Amino acid sequence: MKPEQLPVSASPKSLQPVLDRIATEVQALPGRGRPADYIPALASADPRRFGMAVADLDGTVYGVGDWQQPFSTQSITKAFTLALDLSLDGDLLWEHVGREPSGNPFNSLVQLEYENGIPRNPFINAGALVVTDRLHTLTGDAAGTLLDFLRAESGNQGLTFDEGVADSERAHGDRNAALSHFMASYGNITNPVPTLLDQYFRQCSIEASCADLALAAGFLARHGIRADGSTLLTRSQAKQVNAVMLTCGTYDAAGDFAHRVGLPGKSGVGGGIIAVVPGRCTVCVWSPGLDQRGNSVAGVAALDRFTTLTGLSIF
Amino acid sequence: MKPEQLPVSASPKSLQPVLDRIATEVQALPGRGRPADYIPALASADPRRFGMAVADLDGTVYGVGDWQQPFSTQSITKAFTLALDLSLDGDLLWEHVGREPSGNPFNSLVQLEYENGIPRNPFINAGALVVTDRLHTLTGDAAGTLLDFLRAESGNQGLTFDEGVADSERAHGDRNAALSHFMASYGNITNPVPTLLDQYFRQCSIEASCADLALAAGFLARHGIRADGSTLLTRSQAKQVNAVMLTCGTYDAAGDFAHRVGLPGKSGVGGGIIAVVPGRCTVCVWSPGLDQRGNSVAGVAALDRFTTLTGLSIF
Amino acid sequence: MKPEQLPVSASPKSLQPVLDRIATEVQALPGRGRPADYIPALASADPRRFGMAVADLDGTVYGVGDWQQPFSTQSITKAFTLALDLSLDGDLLWEHVGREPSGNPFNSLVQLEYENGIPRNPFINAGALVVTDRLHTLTGDAAGTLLDFLRAESGNQGLTFDEGVADSERAHGDRNAALSHFMASYGNITNPVPTLLDQYFRQCSIEASCADLALAAGFLARHGIRADGSTLLTRSQAKQVNAVMLTCGTYDAAGDFAHRVGLPGKSGVGGGIIAVVPGRCTVCVWSPGLDQRGNSVAGVAALDRFTTLTGLSIF
Amino acid sequence: MKPEQLPVSASPKSLQPVLDRIATEVQALPGRGRPADYIPALASADPRRFGMAVADLDGTVYGVGDWQQPFSTQSITKAFTLALDLSLDGDLLWEHVGREPSGNPFNSLVQLEYENGIPRNPFINAGALVVTDRLHTLTGDAAGTLLDFLRAESGNQGLTFDEGVADSERAHGDRNAALSHFMASYGNITNPVPTLLDQYFRQCSIEASCADLALAAGFLARHGIRADGSTLLTRSQAKQVNAVMLTCGTYDAAGDFAHRVGLPGKSGVGGGIIAVVPGRCTVCVWSPGLDQRGNSVAGVAALDRFTTLTGLSIF
Repeated sequence: MKPEQLPVSASPKSLQPVLDRIATEVQALPGRGRPADYIPALASADPRRFGMAVADLDGTVYGVGDWQQPFSTQSITKAFTLALDLSLDGDLLWEHVGREPSGNPFNSLVQLEYENGIPRNPFINAGALVVTDRLHTLTGDAAGTLLDFLRAESGNQGLTFDEGVADSERAHGDRNAALSHFMASYGNITNPVPTLLDQYFRQCSIEASCADLALAAGFLARHGIRADGSTLLTRSQAKQVNAVMLTCGTYDAAGDFAHRVGLPGKSGVGGGIIAVVPGRCTVCVWSPGLDQRGNSVAGVAALDRFTTLTGLSIF
Repeated sequence: MKPEQLPVSASPKSLQPVLDRIATEVQALPGRGRPADYIPALASADPRRFGMAVADLDGTVYGVGDWQQPFSTQSITKAFTLALDLSLDGDLLWEHVGREPSGNPFNSLVQLEYENGIPRNPFINAGALVVTDRLHTLTGDAAGTLLDFLRAESGNQGLTFDEGVADSERAHGDRNAALSHFMASYGNITNPVPTLLDQYFRQCSIEASCADLALAAGFLARHGIRADGSTLLTRSQAKQVNAVMLTCGTYDAAGDFAHRVGLPGKSGVGGGIIAVVPGRCTVCVWSPGLDQRGNSVAGVAALDRFTTLTGLSIF
Repeated sequence: MKPEQLPVSASPKSLQPVLDRIATEVQALPGRGRPADYIPALASADPRRFGMAVADLDGTVYGVGDWQQPFSTQSITKAFTLALDLSLDGDLLWEHVGREPSGNPFNSLVQLEYENGIPRNPFINAGALVVTDRLHTLTGDAAGTLLDFLRAESGNQGLTFDEGVADSERAHGDRNAALSHFMASYGNITNPVPTLLDQYFRQCSIEASCADLALAAGFLARHGIRADGSTLLTRSQAKQVNAVMLTCGTYDAAGDFAHRVGLPGKSGVGGGIIAVVPGRCTVCVWSPGLDQRGNSVAGVAALDRFTTLTGLSIF
Repeated sequence: MKPEQLPVSASPKSLQPVLDRIATEVQALPGRGRPADYIPALASADPRRFGMAVADLDGTVYGVGDWQQPFSTQSITKAFTLALDLSLDGDLLWEHVGREPSGNPFNSLVQLEYENGIPRNPFINAGALVVTDRLHTLTGDAAGTLLDFLRAESGNQGLTFDEGVADSERAHGDRNAALSHFMASYGNITNPVPTLLDQYFRQCSIEASCADLALAAGFLARHGIRADGSTLLTRSQAKQVNAVMLTCGTYDAAGDFAHRVGLPGKSGVGGGIIAVVPGRCTVCVWSPGLDQRGNSVAGVAALDRFTTLTGLSIF
């Protein structure tokens, strides 16, 4: 056992001092990266903000810093739409999207062209668009279905879309429109592209806090069981989502994230990251400053410290 | 808990019935794939052979089928040279090779060209050549250092190189020569290319059984501690090796392997696969028939059943 | 001088027997390829149709077979919009589109991504979209400007758009929409994508005969001078258009075309090809059956025979 | 006719004042680029040197500046080995190498991988290695055959290999070794790689002057006829070589060269360029300063002026 590892008892209550220590350490980080600047709503975020929350299996939440402050969830939502679609589509989903790391930037069209319009995995933009397209076909309202789910799991009925953010995305949406039309040319998109983009941008615009997201991701630590005890995913499907998060969840830094943090995780350009300790707890961290690959600098550092201090890595 | 999951007590002795059941199920698999056919020594293997061994943390081994039959380890050795080099080189290694999934075939030159001669990870051929090059520079005998290590950890002094296999590889070595010269043109290979290739082909030619390899990989389940109690890797470095195995260990099927098996693993074209349950045990499986991506068909199926039956996935 | 080369006097009148001989030889071609089948209007064309026309510098036209039969000009129009835009934009155009062969299929997005939204040349689809976008910005009606030009140069006021073809293209336009949005994301498209696509599909839908197109291309043989003696392009600009036609005019078979035919040429999936003998004459050939790279099988064969029989290659 | 075009009579003697004028204008060029610096022998060349020679069909040569100064021919030799191999191999050559522009850097491995070891054209390094490999197989001494040919056509028995340059190339030969082994892995190289590289580096090391090379290239202007009246290539084969020079002769700037100069040309990193006016004359220019794509800055400028002043473009 490494000397710096703290004793973590069976009770997650003991995590509070860990969170406090991490917050102090992160405070001292020399650089914090820069907020995403492709839309004004994200660019104005303060990179010194930092929050972190841990939810145990029964829904108790511990937090530090800005852990109750809502932020723009962005790509974090892709983990939830993946789970929602998988619960409806089952293995059929994997005929429309792969589950291999891409080795290319998140919005690349190159691999898509070499592989006939089937995106490598559900977390690059092309793959997330396919998942939303399918969820929309199956439910009639992909973004609404997602919002309902997040409200139910977090117990926070106040969660909403940020229509201003969605509008901003739409105004910078040429790349996602290109991806969608491109896949449509291969028959891998069913809804009209403008409809799909509208759903997609609303989905990404949802605002939620670390506490909300740590609770909402709980089913991934509970092997597929929702907060109310009902089953969203089979144990095998929950494993699938965690596996995709580990191998593909942090843009093209998944290997580095697995290496440093060693947990399934999904990041967003709003600066949030959710991570899962299967069978134990979920963690959500937020700080808006991003590294060059689009992941929160302080967020990754905090998760790195979390697994080092608690030994709660999957490896 | 899924109904088909068996009760696995704290004692690994309870694994023997699991192995027996898996062997029976695998027997019934309709297709077994085809042995690697690029060199005669591998092509002649019988795809109906099957062996599986589990070693617990204290070195007790349980097995089924051909679990004591030596086979050609091939790329499985890359997990060991990575660990050996990491123990000597530390983080310096990561300046010469990345740790991200490649998204391309194992012997591709494309990504190498776009990324200036730095291979994506230590398990694609280019990356493994870099690791062997460094290990050879640091020890003066990369292949010999590896053989000594495998003998010590497995307790089997009879492990040897198969010079016939090494010669066959040499006769079909143009692609690896191309990779080596290509990286040398970027200054990322230090030894003369013929020396490097000689080391590399001997390394891959080592013959060992499932029992040998399950024991030899034990340090990865013991967070870096060797069989004799000495430290090969820090806890953090052991985590790094496991993380690279999970994200890059099974050619371009790593996502699928994580999805089905959910354990760090490293496969070889000889039909073997090692897998690690951190803190619990190691598993080695062997069956020579390969799928299109170069992984043992029966081997992956057996590991899939293993994690399903025992619940011993990391996710 | 090769024995099979015919004596071609200074007078182009002597070309009529050459055309007759070519028509006879092409009749005997074993295979004719298959018409483009991505839209019904093209798929129904009869691959046995064949026409060829030569226009000398003063506008006299010689023809054989279906040389007065209108067909769908498709990508042939890209040579004309390039010239029209170059006459207005001058060298500024080359900041928006390159002039190098692409080495990739005509509708590829790969190179575009590596090169920040600047298409390799004006004849791949992406480049043609940029040219149409600029021409539309400068004239307010790109397709109308083109139609007026073709009517004036051919002397055929009956040339029109085929709105049925344009509608068909629109219904299969996802790939071009993807290219347009993709370039728009780099700021290299100015008009709204639906407007641009509407202009582009109408442009490609123009119907014209071999005689019409041979006459309309006359300015390229006259070093930039239009039928009425006015100047469309400087001598240097006319050379530029011919150079782009030679290096990029026949999809990814430009090297093969230069090799066999040895003339600047531009083909279309309607089965037409225009070719230029600078300072001497223009040629247009039509036959709807295409080879795998999208060029008319009988058309290329006829031009190959034409330069062999007349010695009128530029090499 | 552009006002700045000079009257060029049927007699090439009138070219001397054109050459003098070009030399004066080139003198005034602000930048001259930088000599190739990957081997010392080339790096020490003086970028202010400039020579230009024109040879008419009967072997009379006109020159200006350093037109009789030997320089390192480098890739210019690829035009000659292509012709020599084509004279022996005929169309069989085109099964081993393509004739399409590559759209990628001259020493890229990417396209080679996507196209199974068949290089795009004979002028990228991979393609030139294939041509030399075949010529060596057919003659037993590729470099010697080339040297004999250059001596015979130029009438200069003093032409030799520069063994110092060949040795330097060998010391930096990893990239070409990689290309060769890579193609050998596809069965597209017959000779042992060290033998092939030795031949290739000697071939590229030949020293010759503008006068020598303009004379030696004469067969390309004479439709395949050698200086002594014998036939090296059929008219069709000579056209093929010129076509490949136009579309692929100046690295990845072939489109730009066709655009500015409008002649078949082949450049080398020694700073030389040969160009062909079919049926009229050949031109060779030399100045060691290169642009970013490896072509002589003053050389391209001089050829641009040459075709502008004489109207001797093929377009």
